Amino acid sequence: MSKVPGPIVLMEPLSGKTSLIIKINAIHVSKRSKYQGILIVDTDDYGRTLVLDDYIQSSYYDEIYYHESLVHPAVTTHPRPSDVLILGGGEGATLREVLKHNTVKRAVMVDIDGDVVELSKKYLPQMHQGAFDDPRSEVRIEDGFVYVENALKRGEKFDVVIMDLTDPYSSDIAKQLYTPEFFGKVKRLLREDGIVVTQAGNSFYFPEAYDYVLQGVKGNFPIIAEYSVWIPSFGYAVNFVLGSLKHDPHSLSAEEVDKRLSERGVRAEFYSGKTHIALMNMPVIKKILRV
Amino acid sequence: MSKVPGPIVLMEPLSGKTSLIIKINAIHVSKRSKYQGILIVDTDDYGRTLVLDDYIQSSYYDEIYYHESLVHPAVTTHPRPSDVLILGGGEGATLREVLKHNTVKRAVMVDIDGDVVELSKKYLPQMHQGAFDDPRSEVRIEDGFVYVENALKRGEKFDVVIMDLTDPYSSDIAKQLYTPEFFGKVKRLLREDGIVVTQAGNSFYFPEAYDYVLQGVKGNFPIIAEYSVWIPSFGYAVNFVLGSLKHDPHSLSAEEVDKRLSERGVRAEFYSGKTHIALMNMPVIKKILRV
Amino acid sequence: MSKVPGPIVLMEPLSGKTSLIIKINAIHVSKRSKYQGILIVDTDDYGRTLVLDDYIQSSYYDEIYYHESLVHPAVTTHPRPSDVLILGGGEGATLREVLKHNTVKRAVMVDIDGDVVELSKKYLPQMHQGAFDDPRSEVRIEDGFVYVENALKRGEKFDVVIMDLTDPYSSDIAKQLYTPEFFGKVKRLLREDGIVVTQAGNSFYFPEAYDYVLQGVKGNFPIIAEYSVWIPSFGYAVNFVLGSLKHDPHSLSAEEVDKRLSERGVRAEFYSGKTHIALMNMPVIKKILRV
Amino acid sequence: MSKVPGPIVLMEPLSGKTSLIIKINAIHVSKRSKYQGILIVDTDDYGRTLVLDDYIQSSYYDEIYYHESLVHPAVTTHPRPSDVLILGGGEGATLREVLKHNTVKRAVMVDIDGDVVELSKKYLPQMHQGAFDDPRSEVRIEDGFVYVENALKRGEKFDVVIMDLTDPYSSDIAKQLYTPEFFGKVKRLLREDGIVVTQAGNSFYFPEAYDYVLQGVKGNFPIIAEYSVWIPSFGYAVNFVLGSLKHDPHSLSAEEVDKRLSERGVRAEFYSGKTHIALMNMPVIKKILRV
Repeated sequence: MSKVPGPIVLMEPLSGKTSLIIKINAIHVSKRSKYQGILIVDTDDYGRTLVLDDYIQSSYYDEIYYHESLVHPAVTTHPRPSDVLILGGGEGATLREVLKHNTVKRAVMVDIDGDVVELSKKYLPQMHQGAFDDPRSEVRIEDGFVYVENALKRGEKFDVVIMDLTDPYSSDIAKQLYTPEFFGKVKRLLREDGIVVTQAGNSFYFPEAYDYVLQGVKGNFPIIAEYSVWIPSFGYAVNFVLGSLKHDPHSLSAEEVDKRLSERGVRAEFYSGKTHIALMNMPVIKKILRV
Repeated sequence: MSKVPGPIVLMEPLSGKTSLIIKINAIHVSKRSKYQGILIVDTDDYGRTLVLDDYIQSSYYDEIYYHESLVHPAVTTHPRPSDVLILGGGEGATLREVLKHNTVKRAVMVDIDGDVVELSKKYLPQMHQGAFDDPRSEVRIEDGFVYVENALKRGEKFDVVIMDLTDPYSSDIAKQLYTPEFFGKVKRLLREDGIVVTQAGNSFYFPEAYDYVLQGVKGNFPIIAEYSVWIPSFGYAVNFVLGSLKHDPHSLSAEEVDKRLSERGVRAEFYSGKTHIALMNMPVIKKILRV
Repeated sequence: MSKVPGPIVLMEPLSGKTSLIIKINAIHVSKRSKYQGILIVDTDDYGRTLVLDDYIQSSYYDEIYYHESLVHPAVTTHPRPSDVLILGGGEGATLREVLKHNTVKRAVMVDIDGDVVELSKKYLPQMHQGAFDDPRSEVRIEDGFVYVENALKRGEKFDVVIMDLTDPYSSDIAKQLYTPEFFGKVKRLLREDGIVVTQAGNSFYFPEAYDYVLQGVKGNFPIIAEYSVWIPSFGYAVNFVLGSLKHDPHSLSAEEVDKRLSERGVRAEFYSGKTHIALMNMPVIKKILRV
Repeated sequence: MSKVPGPIVLMEPLSGKTSLIIKINAIHVSKRSKYQGILIVDTDDYGRTLVLDDYIQSSYYDEIYYHESLVHPAVTTHPRPSDVLILGGGEGATLREVLKHNTVKRAVMVDIDGDVVELSKKYLPQMHQGAFDDPRSEVRIEDGFVYVENALKRGEKFDVVIMDLTDPYSSDIAKQLYTPEFFGKVKRLLREDGIVVTQAGNSFYFPEAYDYVLQGVKGNFPIIAEYSVWIPSFGYAVNFVLGSLKHDPHSLSAEEVDKRLSERGVRAEFYSGKTHIALMNMPVIKKILRV
């Protein structure tokens, strides 16, 4: 580990006009993979932090809020989630949350960048907490787009698909996984009561990108949920879009959520029946522009 | 109005280790009042913005989220709010929201800094929208602490007290208004079914200050609600603490909230029955520190 | 005057990879003229400061170093400077230095931006110190390029031409005044023993732009002097290029310089015979790149 | 070597009110030694760069200007420099320049921080260029203060002492080596025609610290030279103070300097007879403050 002694800071762009400046205490990893820049650093405010290209992906002190919000509303809404596909999610925390549901028999995680996975294993143990070694886990280093194409050919089916990718506006890596066409393929990969959920960047700073993702899901799924949670190290509330073919997350009561979590052995820190109700009722935050 | 042509930015400290850097397009006001620095600037991301000392207080593109969240949960929870006291709130937007409830007969706003009020009248019309001229409004330029002392002596009573002050950690101006003793005085100023609500800074970056305010309210009020909303120009989700002597905001249904808003003629953009349910169920965001 | 109370800073780019961040205390002027952004601000480190577009042009605490270095080597090298033309120099400090030489009968200053001149008169009195009111001064708000063309047609002649323009790489305003062709016109505008001098940006961060200016002067003048002086508020040592048709500044002794300054009544703070020797002997600072 | 992929910058304080922000491309070393933080990074503008605590010490693209200016005026002014002592100078570049004078029989370099020396050997080969392996070199990891005390007891003598320490205002490490008392000890360590030279920080941003060093030298040496050179990666012109017991650097002609360099086999890139004349004649840059 290399302690950073001096005045080194991370400048994270929130938009072209606003940035977050974060003091760095130590740099564990700084390399350029085949696909992107990878930084693993220590910060006072957020603890150990993974940065891909210019953007913080997750940090020790707040990743719980992100990963639980990404995974549990969708997986809990599904009455019997057995097969779950994760696109992206290289640091293993999304996989960790998925595996908490003991109904899950198979959790496939497909990340294009093997370096992110390997470096996370080594430097971000709190993220994966052994998830990569779970016998139900199947980790593939592969383009998610290609995986989905081939899985469709093989006739594979999933109950839940979770998209934990970099933002559509931050780089080109994940762009083709946010198109309406791709959400159509995800729909065909799901069983008839399947659910997809994706992080969708930020609706305040990047409303067009958010609406693009939202429309892509809406065009393919009859039931939609939009929700958001403030993630301190992102500098904003991240938006999520959930598309469902049959089960509506809005109709779950807090009691039913808590009952399912309990039955499935899920212990979460942030997510609960109450949190589910909060997420399902909170409006999306956008700029209020008046004439 | 003075357009800023060049490379001028606002550096807003979120903590001692993290700052927000925001491009400024125009500076309308920059003066030092008797109490604090006052800046009114234009930014791309947040529109026109009021800054007191180092901290953004409110901005055109997101003030709705802050002011509606501060005012409506408390005022709507009260079944017949007639007399409302606002401590702080110099830009007039909190007063604007209070006056939307047509049950309100008297709305007293007490701000220590007359310069903030006068400059807001001139440069922030979207904030007050004429609230200062409403016949029910009573605007006093006075220390809120002194006002409360004297109002107690005069035997005045209020249904709701709303504290819209600068953060306890940002300056000394408002410090004595966050003590347990002061919340005790506020309690005595309320009718027997009264409600207080205060903004409480940020529980992620300043957990001690937040807990101090929370304990001060808890020590004086039997019913407590904690809630938070991400405010983009603050760089964080602001926390609110509500203390109630009789009415519990958690027991209001979304339908009841919508009914009251409709009966009282309140038109809000963010707040609604659904939003109320979200706020009352969302956990507070704190650092997750593991050993 | 508007005191800036809060956390406002100026970000001055030295290159695309390095910037200077400067705390601002007050903003006196911030407007966009027909040609450029104009800022007049107060800073702790540099005092009152003029910024055009993104770049500091001059500041109270160090402008002496810039303006004396621009004017006196050329004007002192000329044995009897009577007619001096200044291109740019809107804040009046270059004119102020030229007029110190009592041999000067006519000092024409041509600046394209009348707003810079008017605002400097009002907010930067230490810069001009009444130079605009000197009966020998002739201030024209006009494109320097056009002025030179017309002056050639009118058959006007000058002893010294001083180019005090924005950098060739900072904006397009001054670009056509740095071409080899333009230096050819300047040469024709000079008497047969005339001298031209221009600021030439920075040879470390922008070597190509510097060399372009240098070659333009070299292509037209038999005698060349390159020199540079560190200007704190610029963040670098500014380069100057002097072209002379007959008199060589390198052959002036310190004693001769001091004698001329004394005879002409010039009182300077930085420039002297010793300083002249220093400037004429100091190598240009460039990046040392090794294989 | 670790390539930094993302948005990492170095914030170098020039003063409490002004900072330099520098984009970093790679981090080779970041550790905290017993005495200070040590960073070795790559930057676009300055190449490979050594940072101790918050301050850049030297960088590949401009170190020549610093190290030649520190060493050659003093060593060249001495007619027969045989024994040279360097206090500080851990990266080996000062030693490299000293050894270029073939009159030098013994060059003792005393740096308190062995980590700086070892890391420089490995990551900054262009700095030392084998100087550590020269048979005339004697490298000691020791407090310079203690070394001087003991050398005095042992009766050792030097012709030139070169102080290449961190700034008096940047940290406490070097503070006791800038006192008038210490310059008195240095004087006693010198032969009767000895010379001392020290870098002295910056006279514009830190005039008091500069004057303190200057007075310390003046109080002990009859002949004084002040000079300065702009070092791009420092963001300022660094000041040097030279104290001499007999030989006056001001009285050396350019020709004599060039003759000595040639006789001693010194090949320098920046320093020459002309440069010597420039340095000896250039005034010190200070803030021009008017009432």
